[in-house]
Amino acid sequence: MSSILAHERSSGQDAGAGWLELAMVGAGQLARMTHQAAVDLGVRLRVLARSASDPAVAAGAAHLLGAPDDLEALRALARGCDALTFDHEHVPPEAVRALEGDGVAVSPSSSALLYGQDKIHARTNLGRRGFPVPDFAHARTLAEIEAFASEHSWPLIGKAPRGGYDGRGVWNLQDRSGAREVLARADDCLLIEPQLSIDRELAVLTVRSRTGESVTYEPVETIQRHGMCREIIAPAHIEPQLAREARELATSIAHDIDATGVLAVELFVTSRGLLVNELALRPHNSGHYTIEGCATSQFEQHVRAVLALPLGLPTLLAPSVVTVNVVGNAAGEDPRARLREALGVAGASIHLYGKSPRAGRKLGHVTACGQTPGPTRLAAQEAAGLLEGRRP
Amino acid sequence: MSSILAHERSSGQDAGAGWLELAMVGAGQLARMTHQAAVDLGVRLRVLARSASDPAVAAGAAHLLGAPDDLEALRALARGCDALTFDHEHVPPEAVRALEGDGVAVSPSSSALLYGQDKIHARTNLGRRGFPVPDFAHARTLAEIEAFASEHSWPLIGKAPRGGYDGRGVWNLQDRSGAREVLARADDCLLIEPQLSIDRELAVLTVRSRTGESVTYEPVETIQRHGMCREIIAPAHIEPQLAREARELATSIAHDIDATGVLAVELFVTSRGLLVNELALRPHNSGHYTIEGCATSQFEQHVRAVLALPLGLPTLLAPSVVTVNVVGNAAGEDPRARLREALGVAGASIHLYGKSPRAGRKLGHVTACGQTPGPTRLAAQEAAGLLEGRRP
Repeated sequence: MSSILAHERSSGQDAGAGWLELAMVGAGQLARMTHQAAVDLGVRLRVLARSASDPAVAAGAAHLLGAPDDLEALRALARGCDALTFDHEHVPPEAVRALEGDGVAVSPSSSALLYGQDKIHARTNLGRRGFPVPDFAHARTLAEIEAFASEHSWPLIGKAPRGGYDGRGVWNLQDRSGAREVLARADDCLLIEPQLSIDRELAVLTVRSRTGESVTYEPVETIQRHGMCREIIAPAHIEPQLAREARELATSIAHDIDATGVLAVELFVTSRGLLVNELALRPHNSGHYTIEGCATSQFEQHVRAVLALPLGLPTLLAPSVVTVNVVGNAAGEDPRARLREALGVAGASIHLYGKSPRAGRKLGHVTACGQTPGPTRLAAQEAAGLLEGRRP
Repeated sequence: MSSILAHERSSGQDAGAGWLELAMVGAGQLARMTHQAAVDLGVRLRVLARSASDPAVAAGAAHLLGAPDDLEALRALARGCDALTFDHEHVPPEAVRALEGDGVAVSPSSSALLYGQDKIHARTNLGRRGFPVPDFAHARTLAEIEAFASEHSWPLIGKAPRGGYDGRGVWNLQDRSGAREVLARADDCLLIEPQLSIDRELAVLTVRSRTGESVTYEPVETIQRHGMCREIIAPAHIEPQLAREARELATSIAHDIDATGVLAVELFVTSRGLLVNELALRPHNSGHYTIEGCATSQFEQHVRAVLALPLGLPTLLAPSVVTVNVVGNAAGEDPRARLREALGVAGASIHLYGKSPRAGRKLGHVTACGQTPGPTRLAAQEAAGLLEGRRP
């Protein structure tokens, strides 16, 4: 661990001059965009980074080098901050509890964060609290998977309870032999669920301040490919009654699990109604559209909420807002090399994260705002496609 | 001069990885907001800063410490950049020409920049090119001022041709003895003009790329107090014909003087029609409303234009957008200490520059977007007032 808070060194003479200091574990694109929001508010963000070329550090957030499972690094990061929050969930729960024991204003709390860290914990406890979740089981043995299959029939879905993202840690279990193979590779027990017939996937962002104030955004539709979210369509084209239900569900989950900061609730629309898929207790890919599309971005809301500042309006500013992710192509090309072409697409707002390019990695996103979803979506797709090296 | 590009050091392993590098002379709030726009595009901004606590450095821009009149510092800043531009005009024209001689892509060019650096140069040459400017003279002696007064009658206005801003470098010359006093204090000759009867003041932003492409924003009205711009009302409430004229005037000036980047044209509306007051060849206070209020902010446009990238849409996103500046109060209090109260104003987007507070210094701004100017302006005024320590 480097003990250098690079930024503190350079502007140390102003230390303690009355601004708020926010610590964030992780320095990826969520921390990068949180830094941009913090700059506007005159709040100083410091991040725990793996490397000095991490996206938030490249954007200028003060940083400390260290691993998110190193309690001493976490403690160094937390020193003197007004609140500590997270860019990702890969922090050991016992370390989060230790920080709370030290008196750090950890937000979300260790117990709320667990809902984003452990899928089995989330499913079990949301179910117990009466929220609608898909049928599931946790299985360590082939016999347990087979018992679930006898009730729900093959194929099943197997998920690693911890650490999965963007389609990693999710497997199709076609049959008994497929299940045995996946079980052999899994470190831990598996979350098993039936292959659901899903009409569409929604996400609802709700923000809850440490003061208890909360605001909830309109539901959006998320479009996945190979298990990775590729597009976000705001607002979701659904019945007002369903939209209301989705908002209420997200708001009550936030309240019930005592979430603070942004809570993203991923929902399946099924013939059984809404089912809660996953929770993320941090700014979320499905909320990137809020930067241009809403009166207050999810990043600014997160900063406000974890620092117990009043929340902003979640109002959508245009009839249609679409975000398309920019994903690394097979050749590992850098989308920055195609910036010129992509900026030629009128109405596309480009965000590049400065990450080193790799196939299948989220390297940026493009948002377009418009009057109707069709052309808005096309503009965002065209610019994102150009950044990915595809011809229009 | 420190030769440390703090940022390069921390993420040096990625140097030359295909991104664009933009150098900016100066590290104030304009550079800070330009940095935020550059982060979105994956463009790296490096600034020449007076101090490591300058606003752009505090926001995380790579920096070099040095004075803007030190050619060696400017050369160090320019090394390897794709373009070099300015946060302020206080750079000696001969140093700018020397950089051009070195082959640096200076934008705006030294000859265009001169229109923002020297009021006498601007008035004389805009007049010669047929643009409407107020009557004026340049005077080094009392006799020259008196000759102008005999034509236009007292009182007159005297302006320092270089270096003035926010009301500094502007004097009312009530009579002969007042003129003598000001003349004694002035280092240089004075720009003398009659006290005009002004209906209102407008500003028009036009952006011209190094490729020649240009876009022009809607005219805005600027409200001054004690010579400092305090509010920006977008769009200006004027006849469409006058708005068209103002836009055309700004667009042709940009073309005529071969401006690149943002050009802000300050206009007086008088009984004689539009008169060009001043030019700024950089992002401008009158354009801060574009961050929330327009499809593309002036800061992103400036980055695009000086790097010869395609320009974005200048479309206004709401019927009314108002920006109110946050100015340091007499007690020298830090507006960051009043963030909580100001964030309680619904719909106010707050930007604090992280500058050390001083009476009369611009420390931030607040923008509100709405349906009608009345309540929109009130919201921005209320939040700015709270940040300035006034009770609502």
